[in-house]
Amino acid sequence: MPFEVTILGSRSALPVKNHFPAAQVLHVQERLFCIDCGEGAQMQLLRAGLSLLRIRAVFISHLHGDHIFGLFGLLATMSLLNRKNELPIFAPAPMENILRDHLHYFGDGMTFQPVVHTVPTDSPALIYEDNAMTVQTIPLQHRAPTAGFLFREKTPLRNVHKHVVAQYKLPIDAIIQLKNGADVILPDGEQLANETATYLPYTPRAYAYCSDTQFSEDVIELVRGVDLLYHETTFQSDRAALAKQTMHSTATDAATVAKRAGVKKLLIGHFSSRYPSSNGFLREARNIFPNTEIGRELTTYDV
Amino acid sequence: MPFEVTILGSRSALPVKNHFPAAQVLHVQERLFCIDCGEGAQMQLLRAGLSLLRIRAVFISHLHGDHIFGLFGLLATMSLLNRKNELPIFAPAPMENILRDHLHYFGDGMTFQPVVHTVPTDSPALIYEDNAMTVQTIPLQHRAPTAGFLFREKTPLRNVHKHVVAQYKLPIDAIIQLKNGADVILPDGEQLANETATYLPYTPRAYAYCSDTQFSEDVIELVRGVDLLYHETTFQSDRAALAKQTMHSTATDAATVAKRAGVKKLLIGHFSSRYPSSNGFLREARNIFPNTEIGRELTTYDV
Repeated sequence: MPFEVTILGSRSALPVKNHFPAAQVLHVQERLFCIDCGEGAQMQLLRAGLSLLRIRAVFISHLHGDHIFGLFGLLATMSLLNRKNELPIFAPAPMENILRDHLHYFGDGMTFQPVVHTVPTDSPALIYEDNAMTVQTIPLQHRAPTAGFLFREKTPLRNVHKHVVAQYKLPIDAIIQLKNGADVILPDGEQLANETATYLPYTPRAYAYCSDTQFSEDVIELVRGVDLLYHETTFQSDRAALAKQTMHSTATDAATVAKRAGVKKLLIGHFSSRYPSSNGFLREARNIFPNTEIGRELTTYDV
Repeated sequence: MPFEVTILGSRSALPVKNHFPAAQVLHVQERLFCIDCGEGAQMQLLRAGLSLLRIRAVFISHLHGDHIFGLFGLLATMSLLNRKNELPIFAPAPMENILRDHLHYFGDGMTFQPVVHTVPTDSPALIYEDNAMTVQTIPLQHRAPTAGFLFREKTPLRNVHKHVVAQYKLPIDAIIQLKNGADVILPDGEQLANETATYLPYTPRAYAYCSDTQFSEDVIELVRGVDLLYHETTFQSDRAALAKQTMHSTATDAATVAKRAGVKKLLIGHFSSRYPSSNGFLREARNIFPNTEIGRELTTYDV
């Protein structure tokens, strides 16, 4: 059951020759989600070997160009490819108005309906749920209303050990009871304990996406213990003042969040074009939180 | 005095891994113009080693996404780079409304003013003129109102041969008369013929950009004799019916225009992703017009 994230773009606002702006694809079991959609995201999707038509929903953290200007091309291409399913777009206001105006000019003959779900950015909220997972917002502090996203698998139904089913010739209703976590009384009066008869098919995992934001204490509790935290690090500490002024994070800020939240692993990106290499970001973050990696474009990371 | 075009993108609407949508930069003497602005144009500009801030104006042929979705990112980046000069954008209606709506959401803190000049698409019109050149529209026939653009150098002032200036000790007013093409009467009554005293510093050149359009007789007269014609060839003749239906050109159409207009050279592009290679386009066009080349991305062609 895959739970992994592919980085499509990792640069910040100013373009550089070889890096794309913010965009990721999250793969949760059989679902694909696009997280932020900077210019060129659809080209990067193709390069990553991912089908645009499998995108189930789009999550936009905030309405700055480097996080959203790839959305218009993505919508056009989905229509050229004859998408039929509605596409939910989760984003802060005024995304609904932006999309409405966009479709006024470019929506003729669209084969599907993109539908905006406006997300709150001032308090955490459950914005998506299906049978296997949830998505909650993580309020962030940036120059525009901004939300991070916490993708969390639900605890799956327990599986019943095959040898138990065979040994006790379990009827279907007993299996369902066991899958739901209950003990079962067998016809001969024996009690079958759930914990010996069943196992969790997988441990639920969680991925948190935080971009863009200045350091925020509130984020720490919301991402506590996640398996993988992506946190922007636009600057290194040499530009801490600029980070504060532009409401971005330094590598130290991101690593501090990761350490204090006890996450398993930290992925960093959204580097300012002022830095010719990403090595300094990695060094600075690992000084505080050793299990840090650079989020490299067209690379996939297990959650 | 350079007059050359750099191809930034050459694919048609459906994205492919390794080609960008329509965008070009035209370099006329010290001026840079952007012609169409598909997604990723700003990244390709950087890769071509061209400064975004040197773009003097943008020309958009029509308002389909693959010709315009890179404009929003380009504007944002010009502002990040602190552009101050007004940026003229020549485009069919309703570009003015699109830009107005865009700036409503994304225009906060823009350091410069983009200004739309709506171009007619039903008859040729002079839309730009400066001391060295003009730009005229070429009405095209596509599914949206579409204009091609004809960039033409003006005949430059004549230069006076240095040895003539020295021999006759020409005063400044005589030199000015000669530069403007007149003959001059010398103090001793001798007449100095313009054609022996002067020369043209360069022969005026012309570049015509035609994308997208179905075959049009009217285009032939408008591009007659240009030094370089860029003409879209979305399809090869095997898909002539699809070309007609989508109002695009085949390689045969483009080569026929080039041949009948007596242009010096033909550049082709905007290839459908249905074709894995561009070789077939080249073969088909060269059968009719031998001096044809593929417009390859990040390659510069003399006009």
